[in-house]
Amino acid sequence: MRYEELVIEGRNAVIEAFRAGKTIDKLFVLDGCQDGPIRTIVREAKKTDAILQFVAKDRLDQMSETGKHQGVIAFVAAYEYASVEDMLAAAAAKNEEPFLIFLDSVEDPHNLGAIIRTANLAGAHGVIIPKRHAAGLTAAAARASAGALHYTPVAKVTNLSVTMKELKKKGLWFVCADMDGELMYNLNLKGPIGLVVGNEGEGVGRLIKETCDMTAAIPMKGDIDSLNVSVAAGVLAYEIVRQRLSSK
Amino acid sequence: MRYEELVIEGRNAVIEAFRAGKTIDKLFVLDGCQDGPIRTIVREAKKTDAILQFVAKDRLDQMSETGKHQGVIAFVAAYEYASVEDMLAAAAAKNEEPFLIFLDSVEDPHNLGAIIRTANLAGAHGVIIPKRHAAGLTAAAARASAGALHYTPVAKVTNLSVTMKELKKKGLWFVCADMDGELMYNLNLKGPIGLVVGNEGEGVGRLIKETCDMTAAIPMKGDIDSLNVSVAAGVLAYEIVRQRLSSK
Repeated sequence: MRYEELVIEGRNAVIEAFRAGKTIDKLFVLDGCQDGPIRTIVREAKKTDAILQFVAKDRLDQMSETGKHQGVIAFVAAYEYASVEDMLAAAAAKNEEPFLIFLDSVEDPHNLGAIIRTANLAGAHGVIIPKRHAAGLTAAAARASAGALHYTPVAKVTNLSVTMKELKKKGLWFVCADMDGELMYNLNLKGPIGLVVGNEGEGVGRLIKETCDMTAAIPMKGDIDSLNVSVAAGVLAYEIVRQRLSSK
Repeated sequence: MRYEELVIEGRNAVIEAFRAGKTIDKLFVLDGCQDGPIRTIVREAKKTDAILQFVAKDRLDQMSETGKHQGVIAFVAAYEYASVEDMLAAAAAKNEEPFLIFLDSVEDPHNLGAIIRTANLAGAHGVIIPKRHAAGLTAAAARASAGALHYTPVAKVTNLSVTMKELKKKGLWFVCADMDGELMYNLNLKGPIGLVVGNEGEGVGRLIKETCDMTAAIPMKGDIDSLNVSVAAGVLAYEIVRQRLSSK
């Protein structure tokens, strides 16, 4: 496991961090700000050991990494990357077939955050990213995840393809997103599955595509090449949800 | 119709602008940059009346609105907002049932751009936004649309609810996204349709929700409240695509 320092900015993200029981070391709140969400945050902070400071807007602006602090910035001791084994254990504990989302070099932290959010709501057991050439769990990704990062584990692996091969031995099937694939409605996406989506510019890499069992295409009627990667991940994740629901 | 000045930044966005036959007035390219996409852009520019200037990186950074110019910034004379009537005419010309996407106060230009991109690929005939409290067609939105803005019209209306009522008289059914609604798979989303998605914080407003015929819920298994608005729009738009394809 690996730890990274994390700054959480924005009201919803900070409230979710408290709700999720995260340890917040320091909390900076805009001085004089008295609305509901801020009062909730201050009340939650006082229940914990968090060091609470009321500061001027300039100070918050200076500390902010995202430029969107909404009057509150929290410093969490560390974010914990989970292991793939933890995700399989979580699926087993819920008596569900594993559903993992693999991101091949997604570089925009907003897309990473939006995909973690989708993973949480679609019932996926985790998101797996490569160590290199990919956005990590920065403040921007945490904020874009709208709190989902506290519930949905993210694992960082050295080599996606190696991890995929290990999981195939444990019974997972892999489907990757590619416009040259089979129409997604015609594939059987039930059962233990890993969904692989590629980066913003080039899609899924060749080696990883070859490791997959199926290639799924989203129907495309338009003039341009591809959906935004977090939208494509959402559409495919929800096709898996639809098929899982329909088999019950 | 209304015109607005527009700056287009980034290689794909500029190439798409040329492909779509947009009139580019001025083009600034990073001096000394010689890779494939840049050469394509320069070649395209030379076929037109565009004023081409090779400039230093500092100059581009200074002009850039998005901070992501990738060595090229184009100034287009004007972007044209379409009218809702144009969209209906385009649907009729293709002999398709109208499919429009309404955005109730989506404030983030990246989400607006991603939704225009989805609209293009899902075969929607246009995106309709309100005049107030909403992101417009800024450079950030244009870039996030990855060129879709050149193909998929966007209309700006004074009052979404009034426009929806006029379209209901013309046979459109309206469905809005709301987690308290009926599971989307159980609704009939075939036929002429307007899909309404709400803003990032509060969802679809009460008045607009009341104007809708149906309320569609995306199945939510997780711990947090909602999907990113552009992901939610994508999942719902593709449920409409799925139902339309299955009825053929």
